[in-house]
Formats: sequence, C-alpha cells, structure tokens
Amino acid sequence: MLKKYLLAGMIAGLLFSCNGKQPDAVVIQTDFGEKDGAVSAMKGVAYEVDPALPLFDLTHEIPAYNIWEAAYRLEQTLPYWPAGTVFVSVVDPGVGTERKSIVAKTKSGHYIVTPDNGTLTLVAASQGIEAVREIDETINRREGSERSHTFYGRDVYVFTAARLAAKKISFEQIGAELKPPVVLIPFQQPELAENSISGNIPVLDIQYGNVWTNIPDSFVTKAGIQTGDTIDIQIVFKDSVVCSVRVPFVKSFGDVPEGNSLAYINSLLNLSFAINMGSFAERYGIKSGPGWSVTVRAKL
Amino acid sequence: MLKKYLLAGMIAGLLFSCNGKQPDAVVIQTDFGEKDGAVSAMKGVAYEVDPALPLFDLTHEIPAYNIWEAAYRLEQTLPYWPAGTVFVSVVDPGVGTERKSIVAKTKSGHYIVTPDNGTLTLVAASQGIEAVREIDETINRREGSERSHTFYGRDVYVFTAARLAAKKISFEQIGAELKPPVVLIPFQQPELAENSISGNIPVLDIQYGNVWTNIPDSFVTKAGIQTGDTIDIQIVFKDSVVCSVRVPFVKSFGDVPEGNSLAYINSLLNLSFAINMGSFAERYGIKSGPGWSVTVRAKL
Amino acid sequence: MLKKYLLAGMIAGLLFSCNGKQPDAVVIQTDFGEKDGAVSAMKGVAYEVDPALPLFDLTHEIPAYNIWEAAYRLEQTLPYWPAGTVFVSVVDPGVGTERKSIVAKTKSGHYIVTPDNGTLTLVAASQGIEAVREIDETINRREGSERSHTFYGRDVYVFTAARLAAKKISFEQIGAELKPPVVLIPFQQPELAENSISGNIPVLDIQYGNVWTNIPDSFVTKAGIQTGDTIDIQIVFKDSVVCSVRVPFVKSFGDVPEGNSLAYINSLLNLSFAINMGSFAERYGIKSGPGWSVTVRAKL
Repeated sequence: MLKKYLLAGMIAGLLFSCNGKQPDAVVIQTDFGEKDGAVSAMKGVAYEVDPALPLFDLTHEIPAYNIWEAAYRLEQTLPYWPAGTVFVSVVDPGVGTERKSIVAKTKSGHYIVTPDNGTLTLVAASQGIEAVREIDETINRREGSERSHTFYGRDVYVFTAARLAAKKISFEQIGAELKPPVVLIPFQQPELAENSISGNIPVLDIQYGNVWTNIPDSFVTKAGIQTGDTIDIQIVFKDSVVCSVRVPFVKSFGDVPEGNSLAYINSLLNLSFAINMGSFAERYGIKSGPGWSVTVRAKL
Repeated sequence: MLKKYLLAGMIAGLLFSCNGKQPDAVVIQTDFGEKDGAVSAMKGVAYEVDPALPLFDLTHEIPAYNIWEAAYRLEQTLPYWPAGTVFVSVVDPGVGTERKSIVAKTKSGHYIVTPDNGTLTLVAASQGIEAVREIDETINRREGSERSHTFYGRDVYVFTAARLAAKKISFEQIGAELKPPVVLIPFQQPELAENSISGNIPVLDIQYGNVWTNIPDSFVTKAGIQTGDTIDIQIVFKDSVVCSVRVPFVKSFGDVPEGNSLAYINSLLNLSFAINMGSFAERYGIKSGPGWSVTVRAKL
Repeated sequence: MLKKYLLAGMIAGLLFSCNGKQPDAVVIQTDFGEKDGAVSAMKGVAYEVDPALPLFDLTHEIPAYNIWEAAYRLEQTLPYWPAGTVFVSVVDPGVGTERKSIVAKTKSGHYIVTPDNGTLTLVAASQGIEAVREIDETINRREGSERSHTFYGRDVYVFTAARLAAKKISFEQIGAELKPPVVLIPFQQPELAENSISGNIPVLDIQYGNVWTNIPDSFVTKAGIQTGDTIDIQIVFKDSVVCSVRVPFVKSFGDVPEGNSLAYINSLLNLSFAINMGSFAERYGIKSGPGWSVTVRAKL
C-alpha cells in the first residue's frame, strides 16, 4: 500500500518537475544576421513563454530576402529533428503587406511558422503538408506589440511557435484552416531520360564550394552509373551553358588527387560535384537557385 | 495522513529536481566574435557554476571597443527578457586599468554585469537604474584565475553573473554599493520644436541598411504627421549636412515601390528610414553614433 | 518508517526527473560555418538522442580543413568545462578515407570525438591522453545513414558524443582500444636558453590582432623578466625574420599609450604581444601556425 503511494508520488513528481507537459524544441531561422539584438529579442520572447523551452538556431545567415534559400535550409535540416519540433522561419520581404502568416504541419509531424511566401516549397515536396492554419493575430500576438508593424518574427511568429511548442495552445488554436495550403516557387524537378539525368542546383555547400543537385542517388543507380565510372556534366543557367566537364563518380573527396574534380553522393543522398581540397563552384562559376539546372550523361 | 506525506514528497521532489531554486537566464554580449574559443570558455565557466543555468547570446559581433553600440544592443534587447535575467556585457577597452567592474540592477528588475564605461548609457535613460554594486574581486573571481589580468569576461564577469542567476550569491554579495551610479556617454535626446522634430541616429539596422532614430512615435503623432504624409529629412554628422531627402511616412516597406525611400515606425516604435528592397544607409552614406543627428519637418 | 519511504521517494523522484542519469554537456566545433543547416542538423541528431542534453558551440568558424587551429581551439577551451564534458571536433579533410574516427579520454576526464588527424596534438601535450577508442561504426551510427559517406559529423560523431554524454553508452562501448593513441603534428616547444626564450606562435587573438605564443609565464619569470622591463622580440617564419621589435613587458593594454606595442601575459597565462587599441599582427605582418616561432631577449 505504501509502495503504491510512493510510486504514484514519484510519477506525479516526475510529471510536475517536467512542468506538466514536456515542451518540444523551437528551431529558429532568419535573414537577420547575428550582429544586432533581433535574434536575442526573439529568444527572450520565447523564454518568457516557457523557461524550459529548448531553443535552437537553424541559421540567421540566410541572404536578405532570399526565400528560396530559406526553403532549402528548412528542407536540409528538418528531417534530423524529432516530430513535434516547431520551426520558425523569418525571411519576409513582404512584411507588413497582405501576405499571410501561417503555421504548417508536415506529414512527418513537424510544425513550421512562416510567412506564406514560398518558404515551404521544398518541404512541401519532400515531407508533404498535412494541414495549414493562418495565424489569428487578434489572439496570437505578444501583449503590447500592437503598434509595431515590422517585427512579426518577434511579436507574432516566435511567440506563437513558443506557445505551440510549450503546449499552451493547440494547432487548432493558431487560427482558421487554410486552403489551398501554401505558395510554391516553381523549380526543375529531377528527371530521368533515356541517356541522361536532369535536375536543379538548389544550393551550394558554400563553405567548401561544392555544388549540390536535387538528383537522388536512386536516379544515379537507375541510370546505371556506378562508383568508378566517368560522367559528363553540363550546367546551365537559364539558357546559357556555364560549364561542361568530365569527372569520375566516386565515394568521397579523398578518392581523387588534390585539385581534381569529382562527382559523389552528398550527405542528403543527392548527386553533387566537388574539387578535392578546392572549390568547384568558384573554378566553374556556378551559383544556385531556381534558374540553375544540370544534365548528366554516363560516358559512352 | 498518507496523502500528506505523498504531497510533501511530491513538492520536495519538485523543488529538489529544480535544484532548490530555479535559476534565471544569463544573456551574454561581447566584442569577441565567434571565431575563437573565448565565448565558449565563458559558457564553460557559467555551466560549471550551475549546469541548469539557461545560457543565451545577445551578440558577439559588437565592433571591437565600440561601447556605444554595446549600450544600444542592451537597450534594444533587454525589455524582451523577463525580470531577473542577468546580462553580461564585455566590451572593455579599459580592461586591466582602473575602470570599475559593476553589476547594475535596473528598475525593471534586470541585472547587467559590465565594466563601468558607458555601456549603461541607454538602459539608464529608458529603464532607470535602481542600484549599482562594484564587484568585489577578492570574493567574486573564478578560483585559480588570479594571475590573468586580461580576461575579466571569463574570470570575473560571467562567473559573477552565473552565481547571481543561480542564486548562489545575492545582489548584496556582489560588493559595496556605488554612488553616483554609472558613467554615461552624452547623446542628443529627441526634441519636439514648433515646426520640426530633432533626434539622434543611435544605430543602423545593418542587415537591411535601415536608419533608426531615437524619435518615438509619440513625437511623430504630436507633430501632426500621419500615415501617407510626406516629410523632409535632414541628416547631419557633427556640423555637416550628409543628406536632405523627401519621403512618404508609411506603415511598412511594401507600401512604396521597390527602390523607393520611406519613413516608418520600427519594431522599437521609433521613427526610421528605409528603402524598399534596398539600403537607405548605403545610398545616402549614413552611419550612426553619438555624432549623428536628424531633423524632420512635415511638408508644408 | 514513513519518513524513510518519503526520503526514498524524493531521491527516486529526483533521479527519475533527471532522466535516470544527469547528462553531461556536448560542445561542438566544426569548420562548417553557420550559413547552412549542417550544424543544426547535428544538433537535431543530438537532441533526438536525449532532449535534456546540454548542447553548446565551441566555434564553427575554424578555417576550412585547418586541423592546427582546431587543435588550438580545443586546447584553449577545454579546461573551462567540467570533467565529463564531451567535445565533438569535425575538421576532417580526410572524410571518407582511411583516417580513423576516435574518442579520446583526457587525464582531466574530458572526452573528445574527432577524426584522428592531429586535432588532439595540443590537448595531448597539456592535458595528457588517458585512453583512446576507435568508433565502431557498425554499432555507433545513426540509423538510416549507412548510404551517406561524407557527413560523419552528423551521422557518427555527434550521434556517438550525444549517446556518451547521455550515458546511453559507456566509453568502452565506443569500440576497440587504440595504441599508439593519436596522430600528432610536430611543433616548436617553448625553450629556455641562457640569454633568451624561444617558442611557437600557435594562434592569433584575431578579433584584436594580438599575437599569442606558447611561452608560459613561468618561463618569463625564470628568465628574470619583470613587469616594466623592456624586451627584444624576433619573430621568424620558417627561416625568414618577419619582425624585430623592442617593447615594454606590462600587465595590460592600458599600461602603454594608445598605438604603442606591448608584451603581456594573456588569459591563458602565456606571453603575448599587442598594440593598445590596435593590431600587432597587422602592423608587423604576423600570422600563426606550426611554422611561426619567436625568440625573446631581455634588454641588456
């Protein structure tokens, strides 16, 4: 009898000490940089909602107003966080205009708080969007912030994300459901033809100058390309050929001499191009975005 | 009777698991950058004081020795953190000289650990300083750090901040009370004249090139300036006019065409100038600091 | 009797609410930069292992592939974190090749997860290595990551570090013990001769342009150099003299006029050179690394 009470007390204590409900993580992405106090003000708002909230950064170095890159960083990172994690993305050239403020729930169980401006393009394609709600700012807005029209990230987005992650509001309490769900940016999907594979260059691995495509390793396999094969790459921006180069398809950088080009499967399991100890993007003048595409052919 | 024990056990368990007293957050600002290990060493010191301490960054990108910008970042951020939060600001060109090391308590209940070198100028004006204590380094210094004369941020400031936030020392145990409280940097206060408003440019919103003033929206309203009005701006550095420009006063960037200038109320509710999708600061050569001022007139 | 149960309940509650065992901190260093999602993906992996894990950054701004600087940042930071802290260092030019992936335990009780490529050079010298184990990737690898060959930092290193810090695996469960323990980069040790002290310039204090040596203050004392003395410095890169300069040995920057050079003992208690409110490294063209050395003589 005593043991039962003791056990009940322990369990209750455990639950209580966890603040009733264990909060989920909030992961923040912006184009604010980290030189001023904007990101810290956002974190203060989230911390005030619940001091136990696990708060993380995705990046704050998205180039100003670059919605495409914001979309890519979300896509790159989201699968490595557990379901329930609430992402906040504030790349918002239309702040203060009529663009909608939304919370999307992916089919994988993640939440994303963002302006509805294309930021969800790539996550929508890979994870699928289960439901979208428009933030009702009459109830989901930090008290005292009504006169500020330009810092939605702090006054609405992170405040709402924190309350959702801390279980202080449910997904339904965000606001009305939205259909059709989200704004999407058109981009070149990977395509497998008879003698070639085509795809898009969504982003560069900027720190190293590697060029990443959206062509999955399964397409490479289906095209019959094997480790050690030589392949021909043609990279095009809009209608202009920027580079044509022949490289070996290998497992990793160290499989070719220093300074040599190579193709490999990157950490997202997509076909990519690099130079061992050098920058492929710089040598060939490659950039990234919706306008960049690539065609790959196995050497005959 | 059993229930009483059960309840007592639960409460005791709760308190114990929270380490007796819930620690407050520590928020750190420096001019160290993040390329070396200095900030991480500071966090290690704080973590060793209490592993449960919530540790956050304000920014570490204050330009080296720029006390004015340190003052501004504190002012910008502090109101978004709850009372009890302990800020550490290490922008300290006089490290190792006779400048005092202090902890200020604001009237809003926040603490700031800083060299007494002007860093508190703007927070003192907006929040008010309730009390100041000089850090007694004979008792508030990390053990074994006596021979180091140049890293007060790690050995004294963050160590003291962590112990204060973790409730291991009280505010009184910091050291003796100090009067008069703090060093202040003179700067141009906002002024409402018959036909104009004057003020200072404390800082730029650098990521976007927006120019922020210290003129509150209430002055704009009192001057009879309304959304949609056109205003004349004259920006002066010391005695030289740097720019004279006529702009619309609008709610947000999207209210003017791309590339056009505008005036608006920023996220701190102060009058500011921007270019939609461009940099006002760059186009007109505007910088910020105590020497920069602005005069605004409604167009007649 | 009841009291005993109560006490047991409290203790058990405490342990339970701390997830059984209190996790140690994980501190991450990379050359990834913070512009993309790589660091955040690593943190997501660690967070999924244990949401209660304290996660910190050392720096992510190690210059790409610079193993020497990675070694230095570890050395600079590790002593300020408590024993049990698990460091992850991902500066890995040989990723995907035959270099070993290891976990080292220092004599100070810290753990470092790193490629065995020289990153442990300086910590091995100062702290001593107690034991090294090679990561057995057949059991210590994030599920589903088998096809990725290039992101060991995420799939193996941080995953293993998180499980070690969270006490989900023991040090022994990392993999087989390794002897001889680690790859070391040769570098100039500090040397005390009759009329001079020699040493290496491992790193610059880049934010301020200060030049740090590996000459401990005890050597300076043994050489009879006292505060206020004048010393002659000769800095050499490989076989070329880069600068010869005479400076006062003082306690801190403020002890000389602005713009003047000085020698002082830095926050790591090593001899260093600086210019008050200026950059010694820039004025004299000094860089750092294994090839840079310095000789110091007291003025006769």
